Amino acid sequence: AIDRLMEPLHPADVADLLEQISAAERESLLQLWSTGIDGEVLSELEEGLREEVIAFLPSHVLAEAVRELDSDDVVDLVEYMEDAQQAAILDALDEADRAAVEEALSYPEDSAGRLMQREVVRAPEHWTVGEMIDHLRHHKADLPEQFYHIILVDPRMKPTGYVTLGRMLSTAREVELNQITEDSFRPIPATQPEEEVAYAFNQYHLISAPVVDDDGRLVGVITIDDAMIVQDAEAEEDILRLAGVGEGGLNDRVLETTKQRFPWLAVNLVTAILASLVIAQFEAAIAQIVALAVLMPIVASMGGNAGTQSLTVAVRAIATKDLTRSNLMRVVLREAGVGLINGLIFAVVMGLVGLVWFGSPMLGGVIAAAMVINLLVAGLAGILVPVVLDRLGVDPALASGAFVTTVTDVVGFFAFLGLAVLLLI
Amino acid sequence: AIDRLMEPLHPADVADLLEQISAAERESLLQLWSTGIDGEVLSELEEGLREEVIAFLPSHVLAEAVRELDSDDVVDLVEYMEDAQQAAILDALDEADRAAVEEALSYPEDSAGRLMQREVVRAPEHWTVGEMIDHLRHHKADLPEQFYHIILVDPRMKPTGYVTLGRMLSTAREVELNQITEDSFRPIPATQPEEEVAYAFNQYHLISAPVVDDDGRLVGVITIDDAMIVQDAEAEEDILRLAGVGEGGLNDRVLETTKQRFPWLAVNLVTAILASLVIAQFEAAIAQIVALAVLMPIVASMGGNAGTQSLTVAVRAIATKDLTRSNLMRVVLREAGVGLINGLIFAVVMGLVGLVWFGSPMLGGVIAAAMVINLLVAGLAGILVPVVLDRLGVDPALASGAFVTTVTDVVGFFAFLGLAVLLLI
Ligand SMILES: [Mg+2]
Ligand SMILES: [Mg+2]
Ligand SMILES: [Mg+2]
Ligand SMILES: [Mg+2]
Ligand SMILES: [Mg+2]
Ligand SMILES: [Mg+2]
Ligand SMILES: [Mg+2]
Ligand SMILES: [Mg+2]
Ligand SMILES: [Mg+2]
Ligand SMILES: [Mg+2]
Ligand SMILES: [Mg+2]
Ligand SMILES: [Mg+2]
Ligand SMILES: [Mg+2]
Repeated sequence: AIDRLMEPLHPADVADLLEQISAAERESLLQLWSTGIDGEVLSELEEGLREEVIAFLPSHVLAEAVRELDSDDVVDLVEYMEDAQQAAILDALDEADRAAVEEALSYPEDSAGRLMQREVVRAPEHWTVGEMIDHLRHHKADLPEQFYHIILVDPRMKPTGYVTLGRMLSTAREVELNQITEDSFRPIPATQPEEEVAYAFNQYHLISAPVVDDDGRLVGVITIDDAMIVQDAEAEEDILRLAGVGEGGLNDRVLETTKQRFPWLAVNLVTAILASLVIAQFEAAIAQIVALAVLMPIVASMGGNAGTQSLTVAVRAIATKDLTRSNLMRVVLREAGVGLINGLIFAVVMGLVGLVWFGSPMLGGVIAAAMVINLLVAGLAGILVPVVLDRLGVDPALASGAFVTTVTDVVGFFAFLGLAVLLLI
Repeated sequence: AIDRLMEPLHPADVADLLEQISAAERESLLQLWSTGIDGEVLSELEEGLREEVIAFLPSHVLAEAVRELDSDDVVDLVEYMEDAQQAAILDALDEADRAAVEEALSYPEDSAGRLMQREVVRAPEHWTVGEMIDHLRHHKADLPEQFYHIILVDPRMKPTGYVTLGRMLSTAREVELNQITEDSFRPIPATQPEEEVAYAFNQYHLISAPVVDDDGRLVGVITIDDAMIVQDAEAEEDILRLAGVGEGGLNDRVLETTKQRFPWLAVNLVTAILASLVIAQFEAAIAQIVALAVLMPIVASMGGNAGTQSLTVAVRAIATKDLTRSNLMRVVLREAGVGLINGLIFAVVMGLVGLVWFGSPMLGGVIAAAMVINLLVAGLAGILVPVVLDRLGVDPALASGAFVTTVTDVVGFFAFLGLAVLLLI
């Protein structure tokens, strides 16, 4: 009965189902249906749950599941496992596959070497279309599940070009493969960070790309489906880092999640206390004019939001390589201009609010002036902080928020309360 | 000379170059090199600049550039153009291509029908591998630039399965295509939103998928490179919307950008004023104990940050379909738990800060209690607001931030100042 329900599901949907039910439900399902968990399901599963699920699988089921995967999926499955569990899984592979996985694991984390599959379809440069087709027909069983190009290699195994399957299929048998290669050919160094790999696939519309070692020899191939996953993961990382959320999935437990969220809140506490120290300098003024306490959070909050707008645009533009030395100056000036104009508009609005609410034109003027200053500073900090962090090698998605809001809080309170002391007291 | 510099660049890099130089430099470059701008460059170019660049191209260059593109790229190029310019470009196409583009434009914006290319490679179900290869060799000139599957159709043009090129190449000539179809076959309705299309490609690792009209007839095909672009654009949209930045590129002018940023700041002003109205209720208390004004922004700011963490996780999980009815309750409880525990930790820290800084155990207690309340509320609002907005059909990325920070500001100030009145005065 359970087979009839689960069998039609795609492995990715089975994995999602396992992720979304409770731990107790997961246990029951796995006991009823452990033989249904194949390699595809394991690779789709979120990292945090893999070990839990694997623990339920009889070892022959696990071995079988792993053997059916391409080498890149095995690497993805085992790369962050504890040594003992990793060894157990690698033992299920035959000698050649295990060697392939181990070589991939010798490349740095998050590099092209980890992302590539070892199963490549290659041919000597002078083969004809006919020879290649015959070769493919004879070696059917050894072909990878997916391939989109035939990679041509010279006698020293250096890739020299590639041919799409569509082009090969529409070309006469006697034509040499090196006559019908594609312009898009772009070998990728095995040590290149996967983020750069995803960028290249997206920028140049690649479908697959050969991966080469330090000597330029072909060691594997990366396909677009895996590049798309990296691209998506990088965007997710930026979204979460911008909000001060580290790694972590929806299935992590309360304590784990608390630990992931804590550091950013701790940093924020320090910056909030800094802002309070600014306010404390003006206790006397506040005691005299309590309206200052009522209005001051508005200036800080508007600055924080304007700064977040600018920094988010900057962080994204850095990630997509759209913000470069050649347009930085123009973008900085633009952010300053935007900050100034919005600052002037909200200065008028808040000046009127201050005037109507508290009946004091001077108070309205003070908040208006503070608003202009803070939104201008927010625009500048929002663009400059991420750029400087990036040059220093710090991920701007991770750290910009703390710096920018510190600046807008401190400047906001200082400008507003300082002007109040100068002009109102 | 300019040819030698520009010729080796990939069209995507030419487009980036045009985007990153100043308007004056762009004008000079286009005057020197207008014949170098081909269809690929135009489709890579950011929307805001396309019209500017097109205006520089002699009409025969433009016509030639458009004719070389696949239909999906023409659609992408013209879909948001003014009618006159759109008509001028469509006139450059021959009858059949223009009809194809016009049909695509008849589908809703951001739908599969707009994303697909009309150029498909299809075959009657009973053809053999050999017949198909011969057909491809004879119709070489009509084949799309890229294709990854042969789509099998029944006599009424309904797709019934597909065959990868790799499988076809490795199969004997006499085998029928319908013997070697793939499991991953998943026709996509032409009216499906492109966001759903990108989700399906990512979730099911599709490389290409046939698109069908309301009657189930094959009208086109979507390839993964285009799905990857949508996926990336959707992630970018969420990143920017979460920060209160609407549409808009790095090349928009100051006034345009100011207009894009303004609405979110205006919303934020309203919520900031709401928070100030809460503070205003406690003017008397603040006048008596100025320390309240010094400390109150800390409680609000911690709540705002904790709420942003939760809402960002929720918005992302809704976008990836990882947050569903089946795990909502567990995620809500988790967020409450995380808020409570972090609240307790920061309560102790702030209690001590309050005590040491102002020497008042009661003040320390008040800020500690307000911190627990606000972080708990932040966790709950952070998850519930996006879920409710999503159910109401509002994009949670767009609106959650304003609601959640209003809640954390109001609750933060009210809890802290209210408790202060009860316990300190
Ligand atoms: Mg999943
Ligand atoms: Mg696979
Ligand atoms: Mg990896
Ligand atoms: Mg793969
Ligand atoms: Mg990374
Ligand atoms: Mg990154
Ligand atoms: Mg770019
Ligand atoms: Mg570009
Ligand atoms: Mg094209
Ligand atoms: Mg479109
Ligand atoms: Mg396309
Ligand atoms: Mg959209
Ligand atoms: Mg969206």
